[in-house]
Formats: sequence, structure tokens, C-alpha cells
Amino acid sequence: MEELTDFIESNRERFIKDLIRLCEKPSVSAQNLGIEECVETLVDMMSEVGVKTHLKRLEGANPVVIGEVNSKGVEHTIGFYNHYDVQPVDPLDLWASPPFKPEVRNGKIYGRGVSDNKGNIVARLKAVEAVSEVLGKVPVNIRFLIEGEEEIGSIHLPRYVKENMDLLRAEGYFWEGDGVDEKDRPIVTLGAKGILTVELTAIGPSRDAHSSWAPLLPNPAWRLVWALATIKGEDERIKIPGWYDDVKEPSEEEVKLLEEIPFDEDAEKKRFGIQRYLGGVSGVESRKKLYYGTTCNICGFDSGYKGPGMKTVLPSIAKVKLDFRLVEAQNPDKLYESLVNYLKAEGFGDIKVEKLGGYEAAKTSPSDPFVKLVVGKLEEVYGVKPVVIPTTAGTTPIYLIKNWMNTPVVSGGGVGYPESNIHSPNENIRVEDFIRSIKFYARFIASYAERP
Amino acid sequence: MEELTDFIESNRERFIKDLIRLCEKPSVSAQNLGIEECVETLVDMMSEVGVKTHLKRLEGANPVVIGEVNSKGVEHTIGFYNHYDVQPVDPLDLWASPPFKPEVRNGKIYGRGVSDNKGNIVARLKAVEAVSEVLGKVPVNIRFLIEGEEEIGSIHLPRYVKENMDLLRAEGYFWEGDGVDEKDRPIVTLGAKGILTVELTAIGPSRDAHSSWAPLLPNPAWRLVWALATIKGEDERIKIPGWYDDVKEPSEEEVKLLEEIPFDEDAEKKRFGIQRYLGGVSGVESRKKLYYGTTCNICGFDSGYKGPGMKTVLPSIAKVKLDFRLVEAQNPDKLYESLVNYLKAEGFGDIKVEKLGGYEAAKTSPSDPFVKLVVGKLEEVYGVKPVVIPTTAGTTPIYLIKNWMNTPVVSGGGVGYPESNIHSPNENIRVEDFIRSIKFYARFIASYAERP
Repeated sequence: MEELTDFIESNRERFIKDLIRLCEKPSVSAQNLGIEECVETLVDMMSEVGVKTHLKRLEGANPVVIGEVNSKGVEHTIGFYNHYDVQPVDPLDLWASPPFKPEVRNGKIYGRGVSDNKGNIVARLKAVEAVSEVLGKVPVNIRFLIEGEEEIGSIHLPRYVKENMDLLRAEGYFWEGDGVDEKDRPIVTLGAKGILTVELTAIGPSRDAHSSWAPLLPNPAWRLVWALATIKGEDERIKIPGWYDDVKEPSEEEVKLLEEIPFDEDAEKKRFGIQRYLGGVSGVESRKKLYYGTTCNICGFDSGYKGPGMKTVLPSIAKVKLDFRLVEAQNPDKLYESLVNYLKAEGFGDIKVEKLGGYEAAKTSPSDPFVKLVVGKLEEVYGVKPVVIPTTAGTTPIYLIKNWMNTPVVSGGGVGYPESNIHSPNENIRVEDFIRSIKFYARFIASYAERP
Repeated sequence: MEELTDFIESNRERFIKDLIRLCEKPSVSAQNLGIEECVETLVDMMSEVGVKTHLKRLEGANPVVIGEVNSKGVEHTIGFYNHYDVQPVDPLDLWASPPFKPEVRNGKIYGRGVSDNKGNIVARLKAVEAVSEVLGKVPVNIRFLIEGEEEIGSIHLPRYVKENMDLLRAEGYFWEGDGVDEKDRPIVTLGAKGILTVELTAIGPSRDAHSSWAPLLPNPAWRLVWALATIKGEDERIKIPGWYDDVKEPSEEEVKLLEEIPFDEDAEKKRFGIQRYLGGVSGVESRKKLYYGTTCNICGFDSGYKGPGMKTVLPSIAKVKLDFRLVEAQNPDKLYESLVNYLKAEGFGDIKVEKLGGYEAAKTSPSDPFVKLVVGKLEEVYGVKPVVIPTTAGTTPIYLIKNWMNTPVVSGGGVGYPESNIHSPNENIRVEDFIRSIKFYARFIASYAERP
């Protein structure tokens, strides 16, 4: 293992240069900026460390790069999921250095994508290189699944996965990567909520009317208000029949993990300027709600006059965007149907319900052997017990691997830290976190040499 | 009376020129454009026909011009309410000729304000001139109340009226003017609804949060949805206790007038692209609802993300603009208090309720002697029975005269017609309507010579 460490240490400058090389290619999916150039560089960098690449293209979609490392006589296979696309950079004037000219300052590497998610791609590739150079072979087969639409909702990932499932099979997958918490403890996350996003549209008169017509003309904003109040009451409970039928409560083991999760309730309340959480929950109850609670959230309500002062208008249209966070084993397609049918049954058949997107929830058991393996190796490399988060409050498409391919998925060992500013100006990682991440993945890969 | 007609006919070109002269002064109150220049011209034009003017100024308000015609030995006094301010002109590119360079084309005068409301001001002034010239004196005292903020809600008119009530007293007032309907019948309106406008604001987290926080953070859009559903149900009935206590049903006489009002239900439905009115009403029932129904209308709902696609955000703020149309004798101040108290009582004390404006409803009885006088003279001049509308679906501040000064108010004899395009590009009046309006007001004024 010392040789691995030595190799990585003696190549740090070159590894950082390669990270910069990949981050110099913009690849902003939301703005369709520099995708192909980034993919070209990525494929080159994968080939350079001995990863065989398959470039997969669906029409109208950003390509997915699938990578393969196959070694003779090797039985085990692990997978790495990453994305090469990044968030837009605005507001540009808040960046201390140009987002696509990454630079190292005070032990940190600044640039769009260095943390989310190119730093993790490069760390994993360099780990493969290190193991290959030091051991003379890679003792585990590896699959890379690197998409280019994560920041715009992984729109085509389900089809890419469905069509390439054979190529992607592995016994365990690493997701994006995460990093360390404020106490420098490595974070491991094992699950994500599902989501169903919809837009409700109500139509009133064919043109905005003077509000003196209100006694006779249906007001679409009112239609949505009543429809929404029918969907969820003040008790925050969704009234759609059967909505909670497939909800699985957290296991005892999961609840125990929740108790150990770092969650500074007072700091979070302060950050959001609120006095109390919904329902007055606190402590482990608030974490349980955050990580295991289903939601129906209004993301936006748009109707009529929104300027200063008053305009007495009866709007011709009203729109609401909703997101429902789902937990295991709620199915977004099934629930979308329930929502449509419920609104019809409640007399709101006039309201158009458009499905914008849907992910299943997915969770890997904390007692899964692959999880144990990852957690053990993290503790070994980082010298501290990892924080295991059984599921997150947000949503990632891990269900494609976990549910569709029945394969455990773990996120951990990544390059991030709490001040990484992902999605924000001055995105950065600490150089030492980058190097440590390479070491972790290298040692994890190398550990298969010692396995039967 | 023939001499009056002859005088008016032989001066038509000069009268049109004077209308153009007043309309050349922009006086857009919403944009604070050309107010003083217009007032100066107006005062000149009033003086030129023998009206004594008082320029009243409140700080931060557009001036009100009060005019007086007093004749010796004359007992009766009538009043004219008008406004010299006009609507903004945009979209400018839809005007066939410049809005502030009025021109005559095909028997019509085009320009911003020619109908609303400068045409009526000039018609009334020219009527005074005609009577004065032809009879040698004006046989009735006259009061002019001409404000400059009608198009922005007559913000300061209540104070102007309160402070100048002695100067304004009369036994009957003409309001803005109206005009003729599509069958060339003069329209007389006798009342207007009241209004209460409010803005509701709900506050959530101090910054927009990622929607994964929805299990714990209060969503202000949801707060408003629930509050609104508490204010009005799907049956369109306002649930606030006592809301309908002061509602007065239309009298038999008023209902009879409703039956005669021109109201092309099918054409109106087509115009708004709807199949049926709220509650499925039709015929006289729909008119009754339109003119005598109270409302709670959502003018605008603004919260969170309103762009294309999806953004999973939990908004930090939500705002709703409401207008309540009121009928006799509902009081906007009292009802505002009811609304605030009701929301508090229903558990929505967190929602800020800001009053944006309020008018009382007001109605003059169709059997009022002043109404009879106006209707009779209109029939005489127009040669057809006028259409009497007991109250309108909209709101004008006639309560200041009708309720505060206990004086009948009638709108009628004005220069407008259904294609006048008020508030729109190519505002216009027909030259013949302008001349006929002068004749009507002249004969109405002259008729006092024959009264005891």
C-alpha cells in the first residue's frame, strides 16, 4: 500500500494538471456549451489510463461515456457513476478567478466542476492509473457510467441505462462521490428520495378580463387554489387516496444512523430565518421528517398581475409547479395517475396536469456487504469513522442502478468539503482532499487483489 | 332651442379645434407626463367660456380644477365631474396617427383622451358657451369638478372633495359621460360597485430553499393557498362572517331595468371563449349577478419559479392581489377589518394583509327627479328611449358625491360609442356624437330657463 501512496504523492502535480485540463472544457448542459469538446478530452483521459471507452449517443441527448476495465482472471466488478456536465457559472462577477481557467490558490483548486463532478471523475481515473502502474494490473473489473445531463435532470439516463444494462453490470456502484463533513469525517450516503414533478394549468377566459367580470367568469387562479387545497391540507398530509400505501418506514438500523448524522438544527433554522420547523419537530424527529418525509411542495405559482400596486384583472391562465418527494417504494408513474384521477374525481377535471419528471426513491441497506466494504476502507484511509446517511432529502437517479439493476449503490470517498460552493461562484476543492480521494479509490480497487 | 342648435352647428370646426387643443396636452397620470401643461390649457379653456376656476393642490397629488358658473337670481345648481388625465398610450406602434396629435379621419376624431374623458369636458364647456351666447345668461349655476388622477385610482379625490364640499354642492351631478350603445341609444348609468383591494403576503424561509427542505420549512405559497380557500369556497361564497350583512338586493324597479339592458350573452361568452357563466346562470340572472354580485377575485398570484420547465425550489415569499367588488351598502373599511380578523381567527395571523384601496358602492334611484330630468332630455335630443343601467359591474368614486354629499349622480349624454377604444390604441369618437353631446348638455342647461 505504501507504494500506491508514494506513486500518488509523486504524481500530485500531474494529477492536478489533468483535473484542470478537464475543467477547462466548459460542458454546461443547461446552456449546451462545450459538451463535445469536454467529451473528447474525457475519452482521451480515460484511454490514457487504460480504460476502454464506449461513446453512446441518443438523438437530442448529450452523449454518455461508458468505460470498461477488464482484467484476466478477475471475477469481481465495481461501477462508478459520474457526470461530466456542470452548472452555469453566473453570476460571473462573483468569481475571483475565471470559472473555466481553474487555478490553485492557498491549497485549493478553484473552477467550475472541480468538485461537482469532474474532481471525482479524475480522482477515480487516477486511482485506476496508480493501481495499474503499481500492481501491474487492475485486480477488479470496473465500469464507468459518465453522463452529461445530470445538472438538467438526467433526462436521457434511464434510456441509456436500459439500453446498455449488460455493459453496465457490476456488484456495487459508487455514485457521484460526496466528500467530508466539517469535522473531516468522510460522508457515505446510501439512498435518495424519489420525486414527481408536475405542472398544473387552469384556463379561464381566453383573454385577461376586467375584474368586474368576476361574478360570471371562472377565475383560473381560484381553480388552482381550490384544487391545491384539495390535494394537501394544513396538516401537511396529502389527501390523495392511497398516496402513502407504498411508504416504507425507516428500519431500526436507519433510525440509529439518523441519530449520528451531523445536523445543526439551530444553525439551519438561523440560516432560513425561521423559529420552528413544520409540526414543531426537533432532534431526531426533524431528521426523520427531512430524510423520510414525503412532500407536496409548491415550487411556483404564476397568475395574473404581479407588478407593484394594483391591476384589477381576472387572469386568463394560472400555473402551478409542484414537486412531490417520494420515499421507498412509492412509484412516481403510479402516483401521477392517482393525482390525475383524484383531481378528476374531486371536480377538477378542467385542470391540466402535466408530468414534468419522475424518479423512484432508492436505498441501499446499511448492512449490505458492499457498503461494509466501502465504509471499512474509508475508515482505514481517513482514520476516522465515516458518517453514514441512510438516505438524503434530495433526489438522484440512483434507482436506475439500485432498483433496475438490483445493485447496491454507495456515494463516498469524493473530493468535496462543506465549503466547496457547488452550483455557486468560486467552486473549489482542497488539494489534499483531491489527493486523499485518489488514495482512497486506489486502495479500494487494490483491495480486490487480496480478495478470493 | 333652434338657435342653440344653429350656434353649435356653425361653430363645430372651432369646437373640434378646441378638443384637439386639449388633447394635445398628454396628461398621463400613470407616467406623470404633461400634467401641468394640460391643467394650464384646461383652466384657459374654462375661463374662455366664462367659468370661474379654482386650482386646488394637495401635496404629491395632481391638481383638481373646480369651476363655477353663477348667475344672478338663479336657484338651481348642477355639477359635472370629469378627469383631465388619460391612460398611457402604449403600444404606440398600433396607433394609426400619433396619440397626442389628434386628427379627424372619416368623420372620427382620433387621439388619446378624445373619449375618455376630454371629449366630455370640452362638450360640457362648449354647451355652457352656447347657452351663454344664445340666451345671454346661463340659467343654472354649475360646478365643475375635474380631477387628474382618475386613471390611477382617484387617490386624492376623497380629500379634495372633503375639503371643498361647500364649493361643490349641487342638486345633481353628471359623472364622466358615457355615450351611446351599438343601437345608438344613449346610455345612462346610475351607480357603481364599491371595491376593496388588498395584497396578502406570506413569508417562508428568509431565502429560497431547495425543495428537499419541504418536510421542515413552511411554504408561503401553501400558506396563501390555504388562507384563500378559507376566504372563498368553490361555491363562490365568501366565508367571512357578516360579509353579506349590508348587501342590499336590487329593487323591483332596478330588476326591471336590468331586463332592458343590452347584453348579448352569447357574444360575450364567445369574446371570452367560455361555454357557461359561473353557476350556469343566464338571461336576467346573469345580469343580476354581474351588476349586483359581490366578488372576491384573485388579480395575481406570485410565488417561486415561474419560468419554463422545473426548478425545485421552496419559495421564501408569496403574494396575492385580491379585489373584492362590493355592493350597497357594504363598507370597504369595515370589511377590511373583517378580513384581517377572520384570517387571524382561522389561524392565518402570519399573513400580512395590506389594504391597497377602497371605494364605497353608490347608486342613485331610477326614480330620482334629477334622473327623470336627464332621461327625459336625452330622449328629446337623441329621439330614442335611453338605456338606463341602475348600476355598473365596475367601480367609480361616485360615492364621494352620492353618499358623502347625498346628491344624485347620473352619467349620460357623453361623447363615447362602443368602438371608442378607450384605454387602447386609436381611441376615437365620432364627430357627430361630439356635436350631439354638446347639443344635449346645452339643452339640458337651457331647460332651467323654463323651470320655476
